[in-house]
Amino acid sequence: MAVRALAFDVFGTLVDWRSGIADAFRASGVAGDLEALADTWRARFWPLLAEVNEGARPWANFDELHQITLDELLGEQGIELAAEERMRLIGAWHRLEPWPDVRTGLEILRGERVTAALSNGHIALLVDIARHGDLRLDCLISAELTHAYKPAPQTYQMAARLLGFEPAELMLVAAHPADLSGARRAGLRTAFIDRPLEYGPGSPAREDPDADESVSELGELAELLVD
Amino acid sequence: MAVRALAFDVFGTLVDWRSGIADAFRASGVAGDLEALADTWRARFWPLLAEVNEGARPWANFDELHQITLDELLGEQGIELAAEERMRLIGAWHRLEPWPDVRTGLEILRGERVTAALSNGHIALLVDIARHGDLRLDCLISAELTHAYKPAPQTYQMAARLLGFEPAELMLVAAHPADLSGARRAGLRTAFIDRPLEYGPGSPAREDPDADESVSELGELAELLVD
Repeated sequence: MAVRALAFDVFGTLVDWRSGIADAFRASGVAGDLEALADTWRARFWPLLAEVNEGARPWANFDELHQITLDELLGEQGIELAAEERMRLIGAWHRLEPWPDVRTGLEILRGERVTAALSNGHIALLVDIARHGDLRLDCLISAELTHAYKPAPQTYQMAARLLGFEPAELMLVAAHPADLSGARRAGLRTAFIDRPLEYGPGSPAREDPDADESVSELGELAELLVD
Repeated sequence: MAVRALAFDVFGTLVDWRSGIADAFRASGVAGDLEALADTWRARFWPLLAEVNEGARPWANFDELHQITLDELLGEQGIELAAEERMRLIGAWHRLEPWPDVRTGLEILRGERVTAALSNGHIALLVDIARHGDLRLDCLISAELTHAYKPAPQTYQMAARLLGFEPAELMLVAAHPADLSGARRAGLRTAFIDRPLEYGPGSPAREDPDADESVSELGELAELLVD
């Protein structure tokens, strides 16, 4: 079956959350290794997504989960920040910069295929990120629509259904093997894109030998998909 | 409360379904008054939406409803068309032309506010229409996500919630008083846009005295909304 549409993971795949969040801590006057602090904030996030998927926590969107995890993080690290600064940090996730290949790469790929975001981030957050980075996608699709975070299979399948394609006609593009593996379990095709700087220079190399395609930037994917 | 986002009805408001469908009948070799035939097809559609909202008919998207109503229409009019031609006619709803002010008007409005489609058409249909007309919106929102067709209030409210705004911060832009009235009942702001050619030259004038704004093209709305 031909790939007729592409769904893009957003955080880490299209945008660089680590630099943006470290900069936001810096702007709030926090001292220390702010990239490491961003990593710690991000790491606190995953267990909460799992709790939502297991039914141990009611549905909460990224803003709500970022608020919970930020309060925990700052408490743990003994960092004092006013409520207004905390709101600004949560808002920083709405204004992340895309990786350098993304704006043009999406434009080229949209000329060849239907394109969509497929993110765990809620729709309002995706709208802000796409507007901030001038990223053009045909459609924004979110785990918010199923209330099940990726890698829950129903979220990938919902994306295919909304776009009007069979799961095997939809390819997830992501930098994260767990996301790609979830997509494959749901019947999607997959493309791994290497984002070696997602967790900063020198972080362990990632790969996904089971992906249909592996690329280092979106332009390369466009070349591989040319009919 | 300030208007922070605009939601656009699509069929009749952004795109000219009547000419596109009449042309599609013409391309299929059907004879007679094809604009009137398009009107009749469209008119057969409304009772089915009402049946879905009343629970008398299971959820069905526009492609499915267009298939049912086309088969009825052709049978009634004694028009013979092969299955392939019928599919092409249903597909014609995916390739409708925007009104002349729409592409540029949406671009200007998107520079000032968050913009979204808010249509009874399903997401895959909206994707095709936006791609065909090169229409850029921040987000596509559909009654498909609630399984309740406008003017059901939950569909307008869902749009506000997904975009992260209060209903009173979201303005529906539509050519149809019934749609605008439904939006107001759900707490939205409204803008009436006159599309005097939707049902062809000489059709009765429409207006909506209860709308917050009334305009004759999208550029005019952009001027009214400038802060």
